[in-house]
Amino acid sequence: MNRIKATYLVRSTAAAISARADGIRVEQSVEMPLAGVRDAWVMEHIVGRVESITPAGPAHPDCFKVIIGLAAESARPGIAQLMNMLFGNTSLHQDVELLDAELPDELLAEFPGPRHGVAGLRRLTGATAAPITCTALKPQGLSVAALADLTYRLALSGLHIIKDDHGIANQDYSPFAERLIACQAAVARANRETGGNTLYAPTLSGAPSQLFAQARLVREAGVQVILVSPMVIGLPAFQELVADHLDAAVLAHPAMGGAAKISPVLLFGKLFRLLGADAVIFTGYGGRFAYSRELCVDIAETARGPLGHCKPAMPVPAGGMRVDRVDELVNCYGGDTMLLIGGDLLIAGDALVERGREFVSKVASAHADYMAHAACSAHATITV
Amino acid sequence: MNRIKATYLVRSTAAAISARADGIRVEQSVEMPLAGVRDAWVMEHIVGRVESITPAGPAHPDCFKVIIGLAAESARPGIAQLMNMLFGNTSLHQDVELLDAELPDELLAEFPGPRHGVAGLRRLTGATAAPITCTALKPQGLSVAALADLTYRLALSGLHIIKDDHGIANQDYSPFAERLIACQAAVARANRETGGNTLYAPTLSGAPSQLFAQARLVREAGVQVILVSPMVIGLPAFQELVADHLDAAVLAHPAMGGAAKISPVLLFGKLFRLLGADAVIFTGYGGRFAYSRELCVDIAETARGPLGHCKPAMPVPAGGMRVDRVDELVNCYGGDTMLLIGGDLLIAGDALVERGREFVSKVASAHADYMAHAACSAHATITV
Repeated sequence: MNRIKATYLVRSTAAAISARADGIRVEQSVEMPLAGVRDAWVMEHIVGRVESITPAGPAHPDCFKVIIGLAAESARPGIAQLMNMLFGNTSLHQDVELLDAELPDELLAEFPGPRHGVAGLRRLTGATAAPITCTALKPQGLSVAALADLTYRLALSGLHIIKDDHGIANQDYSPFAERLIACQAAVARANRETGGNTLYAPTLSGAPSQLFAQARLVREAGVQVILVSPMVIGLPAFQELVADHLDAAVLAHPAMGGAAKISPVLLFGKLFRLLGADAVIFTGYGGRFAYSRELCVDIAETARGPLGHCKPAMPVPAGGMRVDRVDELVNCYGGDTMLLIGGDLLIAGDALVERGREFVSKVASAHADYMAHAACSAHATITV
Repeated sequence: MNRIKATYLVRSTAAAISARADGIRVEQSVEMPLAGVRDAWVMEHIVGRVESITPAGPAHPDCFKVIIGLAAESARPGIAQLMNMLFGNTSLHQDVELLDAELPDELLAEFPGPRHGVAGLRRLTGATAAPITCTALKPQGLSVAALADLTYRLALSGLHIIKDDHGIANQDYSPFAERLIACQAAVARANRETGGNTLYAPTLSGAPSQLFAQARLVREAGVQVILVSPMVIGLPAFQELVADHLDAAVLAHPAMGGAAKISPVLLFGKLFRLLGADAVIFTGYGGRFAYSRELCVDIAETARGPLGHCKPAMPVPAGGMRVDRVDELVNCYGGDTMLLIGGDLLIAGDALVERGREFVSKVASAHADYMAHAACSAHATITV
């Protein structure tokens, strides 16, 4: 197999970077003094290689981008061993961040990518070209009956997807099995009344056997979209859950994703997708989190961009998004996007349904404007 | 239930810290504007509380320690939801690190802690009072036959535990099932010849169903100690693996424990132990990693210190430790410690067995000196 190209951002002086890169290639492969490696095949095929060292540019003063070639054979099978070889020990070094990983085709082929992807989510929701609208059930602590009532009212708005808050797991005050049935019935009732097609997405959470049992209930209930936090349940459990236990589309939540010193572009845009996320939620600029607009666009474009055989995944900016920013968000992220607005709907109180409708209609009109402008620009470009 | 006390290190100005703490208590509980929370029970019981804000001291200029009281009911069941509520969204904020978590007794009681712990590891190895000696099979890439031969030679030294390198997983060049049988046979053969009791600890790795299948093989092979990286396989999978699938003692490896955002004292010293790690490996000062001596002692003392009903876990400094530092390491960490030296034995080449014996005898003499000195000091203290 060809080598994996792992890119690290390393804080170092110019004088020290060569030795530092050498340390990383050993740490992430044989993890012992090379003087003690007595096997010629291991020296040639398994020991990591420094492929390149370049200054990281003005955005990262005193940093270098170091690309290490790692044996693909050492990083198999599955995501556990891939992450172990990409960043296991080196994650413990304060001066290193994992920026990117390019997998050779044979290794890439061992990961499924999204089952539904952008096109599948459009089929499931019936959203033809505009962004998919999504909201979250909150606050946690509400009873199943209260959550089902909230689901019903939000579904009357005509939103595409109503997901559990990621903090709503399997607590005693709203157990998963009861909540699933009640909220699924609530969207069905609203859909009958409106003729709409709102989908309920429950949060799957817990230890592996609990996740797999929840996936059985999801299938039995005819649920078509679920929410899960890959870094909370663990990437290997996420991989197995999606591959072997789910048919539903998968919304991946970024919780615990910031604890890892891994670039969010790689983690959310590439790795979550590689394991089968159909849509990847990330913290959008201008909300409660500090990601820049540039970083958000990078995550969105990576999620939708080329990745071997993998279908595109839908980017989902979230975390304090507001209805009054819909125009700007559509202009920034374009049509193949899911817009997730939770709290800003819920503060409407008794006017919840109207507020939801405002969100839905704003997305439609913003997308029409966006397309008209895009057509104009294309025309302008041609005539210039 | 009483509340969880979660301690965060927050980078902030004095003017802004109060609002920042308020943001964290909302983000880690209901995650929506409090104006929209209409349920009185949720407001009183589920919404997080700012318990205290104090300057973090000279070691962390421009930082504050913020203690948030979180509803224990929201953080159940299991480690997935506990981590989600402790740090799920807040991990995505660059200015926050998770420093500590104190669980109320009822919640603590839901976690098993070590099955064997320090005393159990002493029984298994026969090491009565001195540090337990441990080494690692390296480099990965070797065949099963080569690893078994290495195991045999290291076992002749009389080391207590020979573990797989954490990078040795289930690759094609040394598949788990074959390696387990071959290396277990190798220690048995050496033990017959020496009359010793060296234990082989294989690395368990992969997706949950693979881990559980490996645990069955471990049991069938009569293996008494295993190695696993909780952050590589995911904490919830680790919890289920230890609770439901293993009887063997558990060495927890810090790979992917990645540093900056969760304190290693909390992660390795407390959380790994809570889930059942009998020994916790961490990167010792003076080796290939940058942890300070003070931090290492803190991790070691936390792993062995009081934690509700949980047995003490054995601290294992590692990562570039050397035989010539055994005296110093024993003086620093004391007797209830496992010393893990890998590469520094392996570079001995043909003199491997002698080098292993030197490690074993140095630990014994260093511990005798340490005890004599401790007795002296105790005497001195009494007579002063």
